[in-house]
Amino acid sequence: MKLIGIADTTFARFDMGAAAIDELNKTGTGFRIIRYTVPGVKDLPVTCKKLIEEQHCDIVMALGMPGPKQKDKMCAHEASTGLIAAQLATNKHIIEVFVHADEAENDKELAFLANSRAREHAVNVYDLLFRPDRLTKNAGMGLRQGFADEGPVEYR
Amino acid sequence: MKLIGIADTTFARFDMGAAAIDELNKTGTGFRIIRYTVPGVKDLPVTCKKLIEEQHCDIVMALGMPGPKQKDKMCAHEASTGLIAAQLATNKHIIEVFVHADEAENDKELAFLANSRAREHAVNVYDLLFRPDRLTKNAGMGLRQGFADEGPVEYR
Amino acid sequence: MKLIGIADTTFARFDMGAAAIDELNKTGTGFRIIRYTVPGVKDLPVTCKKLIEEQHCDIVMALGMPGPKQKDKMCAHEASTGLIAAQLATNKHIIEVFVHADEAENDKELAFLANSRAREHAVNVYDLLFRPDRLTKNAGMGLRQGFADEGPVEYR
Amino acid sequence: MKLIGIADTTFARFDMGAAAIDELNKTGTGFRIIRYTVPGVKDLPVTCKKLIEEQHCDIVMALGMPGPKQKDKMCAHEASTGLIAAQLATNKHIIEVFVHADEAENDKELAFLANSRAREHAVNVYDLLFRPDRLTKNAGMGLRQGFADEGPVEYR
Amino acid sequence: MKLIGIADTTFARFDMGAAAIDELNKTGTGFRIIRYTVPGVKDLPVTCKKLIEEQHCDIVMALGMPGPKQKDKMCAHEASTGLIAAQLATNKHIIEVFVHADEAENDKELAFLANSRAREHAVNVYDLLFRPDRLTKNAGMGLRQGFADEGPVEYR
Repeated sequence: MKLIGIADTTFARFDMGAAAIDELNKTGTGFRIIRYTVPGVKDLPVTCKKLIEEQHCDIVMALGMPGPKQKDKMCAHEASTGLIAAQLATNKHIIEVFVHADEAENDKELAFLANSRAREHAVNVYDLLFRPDRLTKNAGMGLRQGFADEGPVEYR
Repeated sequence: MKLIGIADTTFARFDMGAAAIDELNKTGTGFRIIRYTVPGVKDLPVTCKKLIEEQHCDIVMALGMPGPKQKDKMCAHEASTGLIAAQLATNKHIIEVFVHADEAENDKELAFLANSRAREHAVNVYDLLFRPDRLTKNAGMGLRQGFADEGPVEYR
Repeated sequence: MKLIGIADTTFARFDMGAAAIDELNKTGTGFRIIRYTVPGVKDLPVTCKKLIEEQHCDIVMALGMPGPKQKDKMCAHEASTGLIAAQLATNKHIIEVFVHADEAENDKELAFLANSRAREHAVNVYDLLFRPDRLTKNAGMGLRQGFADEGPVEYR
Repeated sequence: MKLIGIADTTFARFDMGAAAIDELNKTGTGFRIIRYTVPGVKDLPVTCKKLIEEQHCDIVMALGMPGPKQKDKMCAHEASTGLIAAQLATNKHIIEVFVHADEAENDKELAFLANSRAREHAVNVYDLLFRPDRLTKNAGMGLRQGFADEGPVEYR
Repeated sequence: MKLIGIADTTFARFDMGAAAIDELNKTGTGFRIIRYTVPGVKDLPVTCKKLIEEQHCDIVMALGMPGPKQKDKMCAHEASTGLIAAQLATNKHIIEVFVHADEAENDKELAFLANSRAREHAVNVYDLLFRPDRLTKNAGMGLRQGFADEGPVEYR
């Protein structure tokens, strides 16, 4: 039985954690989920590290929705840097699922993007845990989460 | 009995530490507060780490008010990065409560924002310690501290 | 027998991992390759650290293709910072092979650049492991990977 | 007997170390000073860490004067980040006293600013060591070092 | 007998390592030099750490020549951050000697600058190891490496 951590925020404007959990449950079995909600993205690094070290999670999803201002971009950068540091400290993957408020044209598109990106990364998390060969088969294929895949390029 | 650290600065133009302490005392019981004041926001990371490791705090609030210049923005970024590193080193939450001088139109609004953000994050700190389910119930609800909540978005 | 790790992504639009492996095999012997594919460049730091610490790799290639937007540049920066941290934590080289989508004028050139940069850095990896004197002989020679060498400058 | 480290640079255009030492000696007793001069601000983080770990300093002042170019701003940012990391590694305060060359209108003002900021932060260092209550009394008072204090704001 | 590490790159367009070694040998005795060449500046942090921890160097010079593009500036920033982290991990000085391609007007000036900066920092390295008082004597004197010294400022 594997443990998957779900770290999310009250700042986000869509319940990305619920979407990820729903998709994980649709994708397979053999895991249990532990959820931990914090105020904002800058609280996620230590939350993920606690999920790994104190709750024994094998992998964590860090879900957040940084705002559109320059200050928010900096928050996201600081959070991302911390999430990488938390991974290096634990030797576990933390899959960052951030949706920037200015990636979408309106609220409806923002919700759509948050939902689909959370779900597509939930499958990545499942693959990293249970079927890593599926990722290697897609190496260099230009996959995207939330938006349409870009696909591969050729030089011949 | 839990210990809550309050780290604040002489650089800030509003006594955010006092506001946070007042709000914590209004919110509940079961904790004791230790306060530690330093010159500026870049002094906060080690201050919080000392509060956790030397004073045995269970959680810390890091309150500061970065100035409006580009140089000040960089100071805030360095402080935030350090606060995340301090959390990763201790596996304890440090709730950053920064008010940027240019978030407000005038001194009165700046004081209002500093006061309300400190108080709303004080409740977050209480929740993280004593009632984490309250945060999970608000996951993805677009909550804000100091300004009005943005609320959730829907794609249906 | 040395172990070379190949860490790559499904986000990249060219199979840089395959190109690197092909070139390594053409360059020499005395090593075995372990491949580990993850979603994006921000997943590479912990992947490389796991290849070194859990799979006992002596050196790792981290291959990725950051997108053209400002947000993508930031992702690349965070990934690069993490790759350097992973090296410092393990005292092993991780050779970063990133191709930025906006380094090429079109898809064909992007593929060409990704292929040649992966191959030229594969030789660097081989040199670091088996013939470091070849690098010292080229110190200050203005070598480039993927594009033409710039060559040395003189002040006399 | 406490030990205060003074880390400064040959790059700075004013002897901020001497000013800090003079002010410390005017402010009180009960400490000894150890001085360590290096070429530039990027050498300061390890210098401060060595002063703490090898020379047993209880607190360190890191004095520097970054140049006016974009490249210099980046150096200052890297140095500041390192100074925070050094503090987190040692659980000791390192008070950064940087004067940016473009904070002043001319050479005379630059020297004046460097002198007064070094001296005012020397008092902060003394306070952190010997009378921390003095800092808490000034929490949120909008204090500045080198320039005039901004003072507190009110919302009522 | 002290050990001085020389870490340099094949990316640089001038053999800064050879210049530094030549100057060190002209400046004094009592040391032995170990050279380690890598592809680019982002490979320097772990190289310096390996020179210190595996080759027992007492101090290291990290010589590199970042390119002129925005992407190159970011590489230099990442390398610098890593060099500071390597110093903090080892408590040894790593003197960064970077020449940015856009600091010079043409190739000849670039070579001149690379040569003179490498040589002037070689003397700093010698001073840090064997005669630190010479640095303290120059504290606040506005020294520069490669370009002319700026000299000190006065407020009287």
